[in-house]
This record gives sequence, structure tokens and C-alpha cells, in this order.
Amino acid sequence: MSVLSLKPRHEDVDALMREIGRRARAAARRMALVPGPTKDAALREAASSLRDASAAILAANGADLDEARAKGLPAASLDRLALNPARIEAIAEALESIAGLPDPLGRVLATYERPNGLTIERVATPLGVVGVIFESRPNVTADAGALCLKAGNAAILRAGSESHRSATAIAQAMVEGLTRHGLPADAIQLVPTKDRAAVGAMLTGLDGAIDVIVPRGGKSLVARVQDEARVPVFAHLEGICHVFVHAGADLAMARSIVRNSKMRRTGICGAAETLLVDRPCAGTHLGPLVTDLLEAGCAVRGDAATQAVDPRVSPATEEDWRTEYLDAIISVRVVDGLEAAVDHIETYGSHHTESILTEDRAAAERFMAEVDSAIVIHNASTQFADGGEFGFGAEIGIATGRMHARGPVGVEQLTTFKYRVRGTGQIRP
Amino acid sequence: MSVLSLKPRHEDVDALMREIGRRARAAARRMALVPGPTKDAALREAASSLRDASAAILAANGADLDEARAKGLPAASLDRLALNPARIEAIAEALESIAGLPDPLGRVLATYERPNGLTIERVATPLGVVGVIFESRPNVTADAGALCLKAGNAAILRAGSESHRSATAIAQAMVEGLTRHGLPADAIQLVPTKDRAAVGAMLTGLDGAIDVIVPRGGKSLVARVQDEARVPVFAHLEGICHVFVHAGADLAMARSIVRNSKMRRTGICGAAETLLVDRPCAGTHLGPLVTDLLEAGCAVRGDAATQAVDPRVSPATEEDWRTEYLDAIISVRVVDGLEAAVDHIETYGSHHTESILTEDRAAAERFMAEVDSAIVIHNASTQFADGGEFGFGAEIGIATGRMHARGPVGVEQLTTFKYRVRGTGQIRP
Repeated sequence: MSVLSLKPRHEDVDALMREIGRRARAAARRMALVPGPTKDAALREAASSLRDASAAILAANGADLDEARAKGLPAASLDRLALNPARIEAIAEALESIAGLPDPLGRVLATYERPNGLTIERVATPLGVVGVIFESRPNVTADAGALCLKAGNAAILRAGSESHRSATAIAQAMVEGLTRHGLPADAIQLVPTKDRAAVGAMLTGLDGAIDVIVPRGGKSLVARVQDEARVPVFAHLEGICHVFVHAGADLAMARSIVRNSKMRRTGICGAAETLLVDRPCAGTHLGPLVTDLLEAGCAVRGDAATQAVDPRVSPATEEDWRTEYLDAIISVRVVDGLEAAVDHIETYGSHHTESILTEDRAAAERFMAEVDSAIVIHNASTQFADGGEFGFGAEIGIATGRMHARGPVGVEQLTTFKYRVRGTGQIRP
Repeated sequence: MSVLSLKPRHEDVDALMREIGRRARAAARRMALVPGPTKDAALREAASSLRDASAAILAANGADLDEARAKGLPAASLDRLALNPARIEAIAEALESIAGLPDPLGRVLATYERPNGLTIERVATPLGVVGVIFESRPNVTADAGALCLKAGNAAILRAGSESHRSATAIAQAMVEGLTRHGLPADAIQLVPTKDRAAVGAMLTGLDGAIDVIVPRGGKSLVARVQDEARVPVFAHLEGICHVFVHAGADLAMARSIVRNSKMRRTGICGAAETLLVDRPCAGTHLGPLVTDLLEAGCAVRGDAATQAVDPRVSPATEEDWRTEYLDAIISVRVVDGLEAAVDHIETYGSHHTESILTEDRAAAERFMAEVDSAIVIHNASTQFADGGEFGFGAEIGIATGRMHARGPVGVEQLTTFKYRVRGTGQIRP
């Protein structure tokens, strides 16, 4: 393809995306005024519409899978992409569960009574237009779309090219259900082109039409979005999560939590990647902890003290402390006290989730105060870093940034606020 | 100056700014752990240190003023730049009043009790490092620095070149006071160069050292910051504020509020720029409202109906509806009902502050629900759009964006949050 033939094509994509942006903004204005019960009924209708469209969705997914196999995508990608009747049912149930969440809008977040008689309320309102850029999992179409809608927003969804047919079929079915309850058809728009220029256009914000971008996918997607976006981004690049076994840790509890934090599921962002063991308890705790992990099938990379525990431990390099393995691998280090643990975490961590295991409440409180991560935990597994586990019902992702949203991004974090001021004729002196 | 001589200079600025960023990040880590009473005592000490340094500050300000006069700066700029003993006392008092505000940190924003026994708290924490870029008012050094500190942040302040000596003297005096109570000297850093490249460096975020940028100044500064910043920005570009006199408005109240909204101070962002009058009450209300404004010395630009009221009314153009005059000028239009008023505001407004005047409570609630602005007001002046008037004690600016902060940005908006999770050994099934 020549550069000349590329240019007009990309101009078309830009025009298309701007039109999508305009429609989203108009839909957002309408969505902001839809009463909660109507939205919930529409989401339940979308679930039923999804179930009705099962055959069409599975056919579209089959075509996506054929193409993905032909391209030689790895088995893990094929698994993320694949749908079956049980997965479609799970998607529909997720919509129903989002419908059942409390309405995040209209909550009065703060009230101020002023001496001049003005009453001021800070009240939750929709964010506006949320752009979601995702990769192979077609269920994100429904999850992310529904979360945005529940919070009164419009969504622009950009599926990965490998899941494009599946995502389109899901979006069509959803929109069919939503419009039956009077929601605007543009409340959820799936970008209808696989052209990568569409992503670039979204990252510019589409002339101010997009309020926030949520990337859901691998490291390279998130990094591109964070680098290029000219609008705010809810992103997490990495979850380099730590478990710190403090001198005051109960060994039995530590064994249970360390093993769960690392091995329950190794591929999620809340999985522990580094174990820090306090020197005073290394003699008693390090051995059993490392042995447990090795016996659970985890590769252990450790400092000298850890290597001394078991010949199967390989040496950890500087790079290991900075690595999110997302696999059955852990780095292990003995540290000199709580301060050294905090220093290690601040130096190598990603401000996602860290857990301290100890019976010493003061040490736990100090750790939770000093560690600057979205989630700090005392005596529980890092794998609880999850919107569902927090009771948010569902999450669109976990944010490691500091602005607006931090930690699991549920429907509440997809809102903003405004001030409502009520007077009786007050003028400012 | 040749390009060759420029290049090393800018590289020096980049290196300098990166060093400032590193120091700010280290200071922020320490600041996050300083107890509230210590910060408050340090802020009071900074106020007293400022008073003690009056002579030095005034001398520095005199040198700034001499240079500004030699450059031929307009009288309004000279007035913004000028300090005198009363203004220095006001700056010191502002520090004391910020010291007296409640501590915004540690507030428990939400609590979740989970069925598995985990308790989860969302608790307010500092944002981190705040970069403030301002122009001629030297008092911003103290105000903005103190607000950032109160919220446990470190601040990097970049003064306009015309106020550089004054800002430096103020910053030195403050830091002297702060360090007497053990606060890190780098908690407030004033950028020590006038080189414009320093602004560009700050807008890149200084290798992740800056968490948010606050521009305080004119439209061109704010626009540049919003265009170029690769980090989040708390900015407002314009306050095109509307007063809508609804059919149900009390005329006497409307006359009082319209005049105050426009004329109390015309140069602030909360000043009204457009008056919308509902057609059913135009016959009775439009005349007196327009006459009041004209008699108060306000130029009126209106639609045909408004022009018919008084020969001094000139025609409003399309451009007028989009203009923030910041002057004794107002645009006036008769609209067909509440929906038309909301449409006008959504089309031409800047999402800052809008007020509806009416005795019809249902209409007021509808207006406040449908208008998508940071501040919506019923029966009071738009000039209440101010952190002080909201009871926030002080504000670093008014944000018209939707993310994180919206409306007056006080100490609470200069915080973020984290989740503290407390368990008793829970692992995730």
C-alpha cells in the first residue's frame, strides 16, 4: 500500500470518528437525564436481547476464531477470544448484576450550609463520554458498555481487530435491548472499523467529545494510550504487588496468604510478584514460605539468603524486582525491617497493591500509611485487589494513577460531580 | 543568539528541572507523613517569617516593578504585580487561615464491610507533587504553596518572569518558616530560572515527578498548558456564566441578582457574561433588567427584543454568545422557555457557573439537573462561584474540567485516596 493510498483512507477514519464523537456527546446529554430504574430495566433488556442473539454472536465469534487460528494466534489468545453458550450466559448475568447495583448518580457527596443562607451540595453526575479501547476479550463490549451506561455516560468502544466480529454482534444485541427502553442508540457505539487510525483519533479526544479513555489490554496497548492520549486516562500499566512478611507475622497465616497471593491465579494484576521477608523472622519463616511456593510449582528467584534455603532457588537480578511476571515465578528478598520493605516497594513497585502480614497492629498501620499504593492490605491476600471483591459489583479496570480514580474503577468512579447552590435572593457583597 | 548557544542552555534547564522534580518527589514522600498540627504550625511560622521579611520582599518587588515599568507593562499588570505592606499582611493572613482549615488528609471517604470479614476503607491521601504555573501576581507563591502543603503535597512553583524577584523573596521567607518546624526545604520549590523552557519541562511531567499541573493566569497561558501538558491539568479556560431569568422570577430579586452577577466585579471568572430572559416575562422583566445594567455603566449587546427596549443596546453577534468579556459588557437574549435556555447554555457556555432565577422550584430543579456546569445556582448571584464563598477557605483555582476536581479547587481537591484493607488471614477462594 502506498502512502498516497493511505492518506485519504485515514482522513475518512478521522471524519467517521468525529461523527461518532458528536453522536456520543449528544447521547451523553440524554443519558444524563435517564432515571435510574429506566437504565436498570434497559440493562436487563439488553441481557435478554444478548441471550436471544446467542446464535448470531457464536457465529460471529466462530469467524473471529477461524481468522485468529489462521493467523497463528497463541492458545491463550484464542481462549480469551472464544465464546460459548456458558460465556454468553455469564455476560448476560453480568449485565443483570450491573443493573442491580445502586444508582451512582445523584448521591450527595458533601453539603455546605453557609452563614448567608446559601446551601451548597456536591452531587454525583455522569462523567460524560468514556472511550474504551480493548483487545481480544469480546465480553468487555458488554461489561464496559454497561458500567458506563449505569453511571449515565455514553461509551465509544474500540475492540481489538481479532474480536471485531464478536464485539459487533454483542454490541448490536445490547443496543437493541437498550433502545427498547428508550435509551439512545448511540449510548454505546462500537467503532465499526479495524483501522488502527481509529485508536489514534480516539486518543486525541475527538474534538473534546471524549472525557476519559480506559485502555483494557496488555502492556503495550496501555503504554501507547498513556503516551499518546491528549485526554485523561484510567490506566494501570503493571501490578508489581508485594507481600511483606513482617517480624510479627504468624507463620501459618503467612504460608496461607503468600501462597494464595502468588498462586491462586498468576495472570491477574493483583497477583504477588515479590515476597519481602523481615530479617528477624527469616530464620523461621523464609524456609517454609519458599518451600511452599516451590512445591506449588512456582519458580523462585531470590537474594543470597533465599538461595541458601533451597538449591532450586535461582539468583534474582535487579531486573527481577521490577518485573510483573504474570506467571508462576516470584522474586524473594530478605529486608531489614519495615522501613527497608517500604523503601523496596517505593523503589520497585507500581503503586498497585501491597500486603503486610503481621500480628503487630502498629507496624501494620505504619506500613499502610507509608506505602503509597492504590490498595494497602493487612493480613489478607493481594488477590483481593478486585472490584468484585471490594463490593463494587464490577470494575472496568484497576487504576494506578492518582487522579480521579485509584484502585478498582467501578460505577462510582465513572461519575464526576457538580455543585448545586440554592439561595433566596443572595447577592455577593 | 545562535541556535548553537541556545541548545546547551536548554539542556541545562532540562537537567535543572529534572533535579527539581526528583527533590519534589522526595519531599512529597516526607510531606505525606507530616502530622496535621505540625503542618499548621509550620504554615503559621511561614506567615510570621513572611512578615519579618517584608522589607526584603518589598525591595524585590520594587525591582520587579521598575523592570515592568521600563518594559511598558499596562497599569492593570503593574497593579497585579505590586506589593505593599497591606498586601504582604494579607498574604500572611491567608497562610494563617489555611493553617486553620481542617486537615483534608486521613478522612475516611467510604467504608465497605465484606461478607468475608475484610474491612475496606477509602481514605484521603496527598496527590503528590503539584506544579503551579502562574503569571504576575506574586501572592500566588504563598497561596498556592500553602494549599498544596496543607494537603500533604510538595509544590513546584513557576512564577511569571515579571514577578520572579518578588516570588523568590516570598518563597525564601516561607521556606525559612516551614523548615523551622521540620518540613522539608524542597516542599516548596520556586523554579529559579526565567527561561521559558522550564515551563515546557514541567508540562512533560519531569519524568513522572509531577502529578498535576495548575495553571493560574490568562487565557493564553491556560490554553498553552492544556495543549502541551502530558500530565493532568486543573484548568479553567473561561467562565462564560449565564443568568437565566425564568418566567417565574420575582422581578425585584432578579434585578438585584442580575446586577450583582454582572457588575459587582466584572473581571472575575464567576461574573455573568450573558443574560437569558424567558419570553413570558420579557414584557415585564426585560426592560428594568436592561435599564439597570445600562445605568450601572454596563454596555448591553442584545437580540432584537432587547434592542427594542433601549436605543443604547447594540446588536449582539453570534460571537457575543461565546465571549467572556471580563468587563462591563453583557449579552442579552430572550429565549422560549427553560429548554431553550439550557440549549443556549450547552451551545455557548463553558461549563463554569449558571444561575436560574425563579419562584418555581420544579423549574429550578430541572435547570440544575439539565445544565452540565461545575456550579448551578438557584436564586443567587453567579459571583458566589468562589472557594472562599463555598467555605473551602481558599482555592487554587476553579476547574471546568470533569476529572478529579470540578468547581473551586480547595485543599480537599488537592488530595487523592487509597484503599486500606484489614483482614484476619483471608485468602481469596
